[in-house]
Amino acid sequence: MSFWHELLKSEGGKILLVVLDGLGGIEIDGKTALEKAYTPNMDKVAPFASMGLTIPVEYGITPGSGPAHLALFGYDPLEYNIGRGILEALGIGLNIAKGELVARGNFATQQEGIIIDRRAGRISTELNRELIEKLNSHIENIEGIDISFYSGIEHRFVVKLVGDGLNPNITDADPQKPGYPLPTVKPLTKEAGKTARIVNHLILMIEEVLRKEDRANSVLLRGFSTYPDIPTFSNRYKISSMGIAAYPMYIGLASLVGMDIPSLKCKNFKEELNVLKNEIDNYDFFFLHYKYTDKAGEDGDFEKKVKHIEAFDMTFSDILDMGFDVIAVTGDHSTPAFLKGHSFHPNPLMILSKNAREDGLKRFSEKNARYGSLGVFYAKKLMLLLLGHALRLKKYGA
Amino acid sequence: MSFWHELLKSEGGKILLVVLDGLGGIEIDGKTALEKAYTPNMDKVAPFASMGLTIPVEYGITPGSGPAHLALFGYDPLEYNIGRGILEALGIGLNIAKGELVARGNFATQQEGIIIDRRAGRISTELNRELIEKLNSHIENIEGIDISFYSGIEHRFVVKLVGDGLNPNITDADPQKPGYPLPTVKPLTKEAGKTARIVNHLILMIEEVLRKEDRANSVLLRGFSTYPDIPTFSNRYKISSMGIAAYPMYIGLASLVGMDIPSLKCKNFKEELNVLKNEIDNYDFFFLHYKYTDKAGEDGDFEKKVKHIEAFDMTFSDILDMGFDVIAVTGDHSTPAFLKGHSFHPNPLMILSKNAREDGLKRFSEKNARYGSLGVFYAKKLMLLLLGHALRLKKYGA
Repeated sequence: MSFWHELLKSEGGKILLVVLDGLGGIEIDGKTALEKAYTPNMDKVAPFASMGLTIPVEYGITPGSGPAHLALFGYDPLEYNIGRGILEALGIGLNIAKGELVARGNFATQQEGIIIDRRAGRISTELNRELIEKLNSHIENIEGIDISFYSGIEHRFVVKLVGDGLNPNITDADPQKPGYPLPTVKPLTKEAGKTARIVNHLILMIEEVLRKEDRANSVLLRGFSTYPDIPTFSNRYKISSMGIAAYPMYIGLASLVGMDIPSLKCKNFKEELNVLKNEIDNYDFFFLHYKYTDKAGEDGDFEKKVKHIEAFDMTFSDILDMGFDVIAVTGDHSTPAFLKGHSFHPNPLMILSKNAREDGLKRFSEKNARYGSLGVFYAKKLMLLLLGHALRLKKYGA
Repeated sequence: MSFWHELLKSEGGKILLVVLDGLGGIEIDGKTALEKAYTPNMDKVAPFASMGLTIPVEYGITPGSGPAHLALFGYDPLEYNIGRGILEALGIGLNIAKGELVARGNFATQQEGIIIDRRAGRISTELNRELIEKLNSHIENIEGIDISFYSGIEHRFVVKLVGDGLNPNITDADPQKPGYPLPTVKPLTKEAGKTARIVNHLILMIEEVLRKEDRANSVLLRGFSTYPDIPTFSNRYKISSMGIAAYPMYIGLASLVGMDIPSLKCKNFKEELNVLKNEIDNYDFFFLHYKYTDKAGEDGDFEKKVKHIEAFDMTFSDILDMGFDVIAVTGDHSTPAFLKGHSFHPNPLMILSKNAREDGLKRFSEKNARYGSLGVFYAKKLMLLLLGHALRLKKYGA
């Protein structure tokens, strides 16, 4: 642990970290979505906030949701690398335990041993479910390792292997582009020999089951990974914590670092807010996730992103009324509608607290955030700032 | 040493680093103390300065004076950790040599082996002096190690051990809270075994001397430390240097890094300025310390802090007239009156030099500093910036 760990107090202010997924953007007609949105509730408190811009992983680097959230939770995303298999599993709401191995799967089309379509013509999710059922009924165990399959959207699925001695250090079963045969999986370390052998055997069994399928007659398996060894949030920061999200991926990311998760699943942001209100006395740190900004950005729908920011703002005075000592509003990464996807641009951030320096900036926006007293800094430092504002860190040295 | 060490020139401009202790604040009614203060002399030159904000140690971390000043002197405060015993000794003006071991002491009250008051009811400084005299006359040497005691304020004192083989890696003799017995000191490494034994013996001897005292019948000893192994300022930067301060702690910090100290003790800032004027031809770097801003902040007295900033400003045209090539004005850490203590908020900084980029900002303040061309950066980088502005660094590479 770092030098600051021994400075942590187990008492102090209550912290709320609100993540508007993919919040940051780039300008269309001179304004980002956040700048175009009508946000009277955030505007009211913006002048009292400290603002800044955070870099999710590294200058110029576009992060996925996993590393972007880990950074916000204060974990160096380059040190704590979460396998894609794990993220895919989290994304479909699958619980993974330590020692279990997961991989992302694609249904694919092969012809005479050559992969000709890596997504099997994007088969329907319905067909996907039928095929997964078939696989589960035909394939249960290889060399004492239990195998199970889980449907995703369209051509995507997850395969989980449970048993002793599984090791994620194997190559992908994926030719990367069509026109090549499916490569044999190879172990990257001695310890992974058995796992590679089992996975190669598994692929043969899968192709046998799918033999008569028109398009989905093969699979790619990628991102083999086990549950990462991450210090829990509560041990790391001496604070009780809950993660509230409607989408499985973000619930998964919060539980990955050991945050508590509400027992009732939230279907939307309104239900998330209800949980927050009900649980407020039970925890000192809350992570609250708002997905819709990212979705609109990914769709390239600038106006929709504006609307979703405005919808969030409508809830913001309720959030303010809950009495948190420190509220941070930020994004995990930018998702400019202009780019129809995640981007490397830094996240606007505002910290509201009676212990915050008041930057006096009129609105919360990308352009104002860069004038803020927090400067431009790595997102992984945010947690220390939040703990500082909550007066949860003792003085360093005399 | 770092890559820049071989770029150092032994010639170049004269540098003055003015540290207004605890300068930074947070707003009361929208203004910090620096923003509220009437500072016509600083205002006159502010538009020609480069400004920025510095982070003393790390985001969210509140530093003590020791690490905060080390950072300003360009030493990584996480690499060069100064023991609390050393700082306490510096604070009462005690000179420490290499190999000597010091600890902070508290007079305390024990009853039947239980510490019931860790500060002995904050006895008077007068009584403290009497008791220290008594201890010095009764305890002189243990196993060839010379022992001496030095009075601090109220219940505080310093104990110094001089002799061969002393090692600071021992636990504190302090139960941390009342209601517990004084713990036996334990060695944290093999080499510290002898030191632990001597200190435990010492405590028994102290309690014997104090046996009949009403309140001050025991002691706590904490923060055992030896003189840190720090490269000297003049070697590190190839520059002659003097540290000018009225308070022992800051004189001590300057001498810790090997700066020269005026032979005559300064009683106040006016005397500090006289020394500066007299010594200006003898050194190329001066550290000038102004304590009063921090004291007002610690007292929670916002208006007094404003007044002390104004009082400093009154002297600033004199300082400008002295002809330095580079003048930096900054704080070591923030001390918001609102928080009545040190805080983690970054320090406003302005650098005045004919070689500085002119940021054109109207006043020197927290809010303006964040618009400065220096950005928000770690304080430990400041020395390189000052040397750069003084043209004391050769080009790196061709």
